[in-house]
Amino acid sequence: MKEPLKLGIAGLGTVGAGLLELIAKHGSGLEETLERRIVVTGVCARNRDKVRGFAIGDAVWFDDAVTLATDANIDCFVELIGGDEGPARAAVEAALKVKKHVVTANKALLAKHGMELAKLAEKSGVSLNFEAAVAGGIPVIKMLREALAANEVKRVYGILNGTCNYILSKMQDEHLAFDDVLKDAQAKGYAEADPTFDIGGFDAAHKLALLTSLAFGTKLPADQIHIEGIQTINAADIEAAHSLGYRIKLLGVAERTSTGIEARVHPAFVPEEAPIAQVSGVTNCVAIEGDFSGSVLLVGPGAGSKPTASAVASDIVDVARGLVLPPFLKPVAQLKPFKRANLSGHYGSYYIRLSVLDRPGAMASIAKRMGDRGVSLESIVQKKPGTSDAAAPVVLITHETTEENIRKALDAIEADGKVAARPQMIRIEEL
Amino acid sequence: MKEPLKLGIAGLGTVGAGLLELIAKHGSGLEETLERRIVVTGVCARNRDKVRGFAIGDAVWFDDAVTLATDANIDCFVELIGGDEGPARAAVEAALKVKKHVVTANKALLAKHGMELAKLAEKSGVSLNFEAAVAGGIPVIKMLREALAANEVKRVYGILNGTCNYILSKMQDEHLAFDDVLKDAQAKGYAEADPTFDIGGFDAAHKLALLTSLAFGTKLPADQIHIEGIQTINAADIEAAHSLGYRIKLLGVAERTSTGIEARVHPAFVPEEAPIAQVSGVTNCVAIEGDFSGSVLLVGPGAGSKPTASAVASDIVDVARGLVLPPFLKPVAQLKPFKRANLSGHYGSYYIRLSVLDRPGAMASIAKRMGDRGVSLESIVQKKPGTSDAAAPVVLITHETTEENIRKALDAIEADGKVAARPQMIRIEEL
Repeated sequence: MKEPLKLGIAGLGTVGAGLLELIAKHGSGLEETLERRIVVTGVCARNRDKVRGFAIGDAVWFDDAVTLATDANIDCFVELIGGDEGPARAAVEAALKVKKHVVTANKALLAKHGMELAKLAEKSGVSLNFEAAVAGGIPVIKMLREALAANEVKRVYGILNGTCNYILSKMQDEHLAFDDVLKDAQAKGYAEADPTFDIGGFDAAHKLALLTSLAFGTKLPADQIHIEGIQTINAADIEAAHSLGYRIKLLGVAERTSTGIEARVHPAFVPEEAPIAQVSGVTNCVAIEGDFSGSVLLVGPGAGSKPTASAVASDIVDVARGLVLPPFLKPVAQLKPFKRANLSGHYGSYYIRLSVLDRPGAMASIAKRMGDRGVSLESIVQKKPGTSDAAAPVVLITHETTEENIRKALDAIEADGKVAARPQMIRIEEL
Repeated sequence: MKEPLKLGIAGLGTVGAGLLELIAKHGSGLEETLERRIVVTGVCARNRDKVRGFAIGDAVWFDDAVTLATDANIDCFVELIGGDEGPARAAVEAALKVKKHVVTANKALLAKHGMELAKLAEKSGVSLNFEAAVAGGIPVIKMLREALAANEVKRVYGILNGTCNYILSKMQDEHLAFDDVLKDAQAKGYAEADPTFDIGGFDAAHKLALLTSLAFGTKLPADQIHIEGIQTINAADIEAAHSLGYRIKLLGVAERTSTGIEARVHPAFVPEEAPIAQVSGVTNCVAIEGDFSGSVLLVGPGAGSKPTASAVASDIVDVARGLVLPPFLKPVAQLKPFKRANLSGHYGSYYIRLSVLDRPGAMASIAKRMGDRGVSLESIVQKKPGTSDAAAPVVLITHETTEENIRKALDAIEADGKVAARPQMIRIEEL
């Protein structure tokens, strides 16, 4: 029997509580599996006096995360504090410097400081594991770092934000407006009081940054991800998607192109017969397209106390087994610079929704502007204007073209004054 | 830089060719990732003189697999010969005995001799990796052995045989009869001349045996899996499933119950809105339900030269990284005996199709027999008999009950002489 693995856990919120519950329930089973005990020797949280629904057993209480992270009586520091600076960053850096393994669920910290932290981990010869940072209970980090490591990845994409997927699913299933569903999601605790971080696509972008580095063996893209949120999606878009055989999902997509890597977060049309179209509610999914593996899709709970605790525990299991890998697929020195592809060169089909003013020749002028840019149309759906509205909704599906052509055509249409509002444009993702 | 990892590859069929192609294409990228070269030092196949579409480079040719497996100049033996006895078994055993790591895609060998081989591997302190043995390019072994190792698995299930899924998908999409689709599948190379191994469910059962041991930490169930094939599924069943909001899939299911583990391979109704219902053609999928992770679904190519080579390569990557794990989740001494649950206690809903003879009181007598066993019906669909047929097809969907009740009720209905053929019974799987 090997020496026990001694954990210091900082942060006793929902994930920390889930992890302590998991260790209490499965500790003896894990001991059989690992031939090694996992022991929580220290814990730390903001408020020692808070009443919690679980016991910390024989663990020593620390008031300061850095002190816990560097304590001689821990082998592995588990950071569940959150935040990209402050005590989380200080404690993780301190732990790595004194050769403690680190397990963290902190996507914001990693998206911002991942490269420096990975260098520290490599220098000390310890693990920096972060399975729980992306897509909750879905083991996508292990997929990219290990299972598909012998592939050249062509594209990785997924539904990475449960809040957005809940809102879009409910808008579709119950024919509700965005604002009403957002209020419901806030009441249920699926969305924050200030929902910008989720619905604006920023949370998904943090996760996509980590996936991009792992998939393509590049440095983190940091602020080089194109981000659009779901705020502009309305019931007419949801309805049009449905009638055309699609679903609207907020996707994070990173794709190898001839000019670099396209990394983008935006609402997208996906074909309703694709398995990803059936991923609804707060469920997440990630698909990885390797040149040998083909497309491998993973679907599962994207958040929650228990699924996230499961992911954290799998990282701890790897540490207990002595598996130490470069945090981002390859040693930092081998990671290539992130080369961003210009999104104007993105090639694909598009959904366009226009509010066409009822003026003579409006449709002809729109068609001409599209034709001028070489954009051909697969379908046009024109509806009668509502009684109180002089503008008629027109939905277009284009054949494949570049984003530059679409944007220039739409700019020209808007400048012509034939539409009552800024055109809606949603990319159709080929799956 | 560490010493190169030296491979001996036995078997140069489609998977062996795919693996050599992968190593040729991605060898230098892998060297960056692993800080270690992967070198093929020896190969072996049945016929040295066969013209192959690839070069074996500097590798030494061996006529005998056991000689290659024990050669001083290899570290890791890759077995791609196939078969549960003969040279595959002899070479794998020989390799393990002389402390060579083993990577194999051979599900039949493992399902039959996995426990002995795992003991040999443990004794020698080497790896016995078999990612490619189940579900091709889908990394389900790594999921169970590593990513979800800190969970108590409640159920694992999946579409494990591409041939069956191709046949069932095509029957549904093109409204064709079983025999016609089977002939088409044989012509396309998706089914063997003797298709029994696939369509009888035996291939899926081999894979399920491995998944069961890994999911529940038990010894292999060997011949204790309940197996039904897809031969009895006809167009009427496919059509009825569709009209009731289901799809028919050949599933392998292993589930923890209060009396033991239910391990079963059979056609099943799955709700059409479940992601698994959208898994069509030769694609495979596996879902794992952990008590903390929740349900994690993996979807991907179930076979083929490249996806299988990707899985073999991921096993080699693990060997190159020095990761040596117990082959079946826990050390063999810690594996519990496989305790089979009696399928008569299976609790669920059922689809029943009867050919009811047009006699007075037939339906009343059928309803009474169901009632006698406490089986209540959710729906009854009765169709007019075809012109040339005196029997009318009747489709029943039951509420949840035990399999014993269903079987006894159906036996009584048959004994009553009110049906023209043996009743069709298909389990409805709750997802």
